[in-house]
Amino acid sequence: MASPVIEPVARLIEAFSRLPGIGPKTAQRLTFHLLRAPETEARILAAALVDVRDKVVFCERCFNVSDAPLCPLCRDPGRDASRLCVVEEPLDVLALERTAEFRGLYHVLHGAISPIDGVGPERLRIKELLARADDAKRAGTPLEEVILATNPTLEGEATAMYLAERLENVVGVVSRIARGLPVGGDLEYADEVTLIRALQGRRAV
Amino acid sequence: MASPVIEPVARLIEAFSRLPGIGPKTAQRLTFHLLRAPETEARILAAALVDVRDKVVFCERCFNVSDAPLCPLCRDPGRDASRLCVVEEPLDVLALERTAEFRGLYHVLHGAISPIDGVGPERLRIKELLARADDAKRAGTPLEEVILATNPTLEGEATAMYLAERLENVVGVVSRIARGLPVGGDLEYADEVTLIRALQGRRAV
Repeated sequence: MASPVIEPVARLIEAFSRLPGIGPKTAQRLTFHLLRAPETEARILAAALVDVRDKVVFCERCFNVSDAPLCPLCRDPGRDASRLCVVEEPLDVLALERTAEFRGLYHVLHGAISPIDGVGPERLRIKELLARADDAKRAGTPLEEVILATNPTLEGEATAMYLAERLENVVGVVSRIARGLPVGGDLEYADEVTLIRALQGRRAV
Repeated sequence: MASPVIEPVARLIEAFSRLPGIGPKTAQRLTFHLLRAPETEARILAAALVDVRDKVVFCERCFNVSDAPLCPLCRDPGRDASRLCVVEEPLDVLALERTAEFRGLYHVLHGAISPIDGVGPERLRIKELLARADDAKRAGTPLEEVILATNPTLEGEATAMYLAERLENVVGVVSRIARGLPVGGDLEYADEVTLIRALQGRRAV
């Protein structure tokens, strides 16, 4: 019995279904969409995929994605170089930039400490972060603030604690982003840990 | 102010978000996944995309996707050529093949009649379907059955009715797939139209 799926189609379905969050059904749907869509659609996507791997590097200072040795943020003289925001992933930089609330620079760790997954501090860009803080101190212009914006998960908290210890005497202030009720959320449905954090983080009004 | 998203990354996010069911957030997630994943992953996907447009054609008999003038199903001598199942899209062929219930051949219309969207019969592979039925009749071996398996939607039903009229005196039997309660479904939650169809389609047990 011949398979009803021809090989190039099967191969594209397979490639799509390796992507996170794309199941076999969605992979099929995407594949048949591209078969029906104007030919350029598949070719533009293919070219963008090749380009992203050919042209994108990591910034040698903050390890955000970049098209040059230094990323657009590190190159921008308008940013406040005395404040660093430490995040786990490049996507976190985008999320924070959308708020337009932070005008300093970033440092992307590319993960969080997770002993269960075998990810120790040496697997992350922590050495480079400590070097940035050390260099600034030795140059007589120590960093005023390092904001630890790792995720509010077990791994993110462990990473923040680890970094707080190491940065304590090297930078002005080490701070951690607030944990509490999400805006628009409902106290009644908040989990206990979030509620405890919301209480602990309370401020006089 | 410099944009925090460099151009090749923005371009891949844009290409992903053109795909059906992929929103801007998912497109971002996929893009950053591919930046972090081994380089081969992006390249394999890119090559599969190019291949699918270079190597995939439509079967000149049934208009299913194919890697040769005739698709694997039309080439298979083990299939019953006297029965045709008419579907809207190549994905429908896959769905029916998974059931292993039908051993005949297919005809893919590539859509359904939809006056609102300006899709008349001439935009579909209906002429070719009628020619297949006509040719079989003139050869003295008329098709025994044509199963109309277009979707149970307004457009699918209209297409089935249109085809039933035209095929009436050319083939042995024209049948329509059953509409009724989905297996595992709950009568209480079924919509009225489905319930009416389920009653109309009742059979003696």
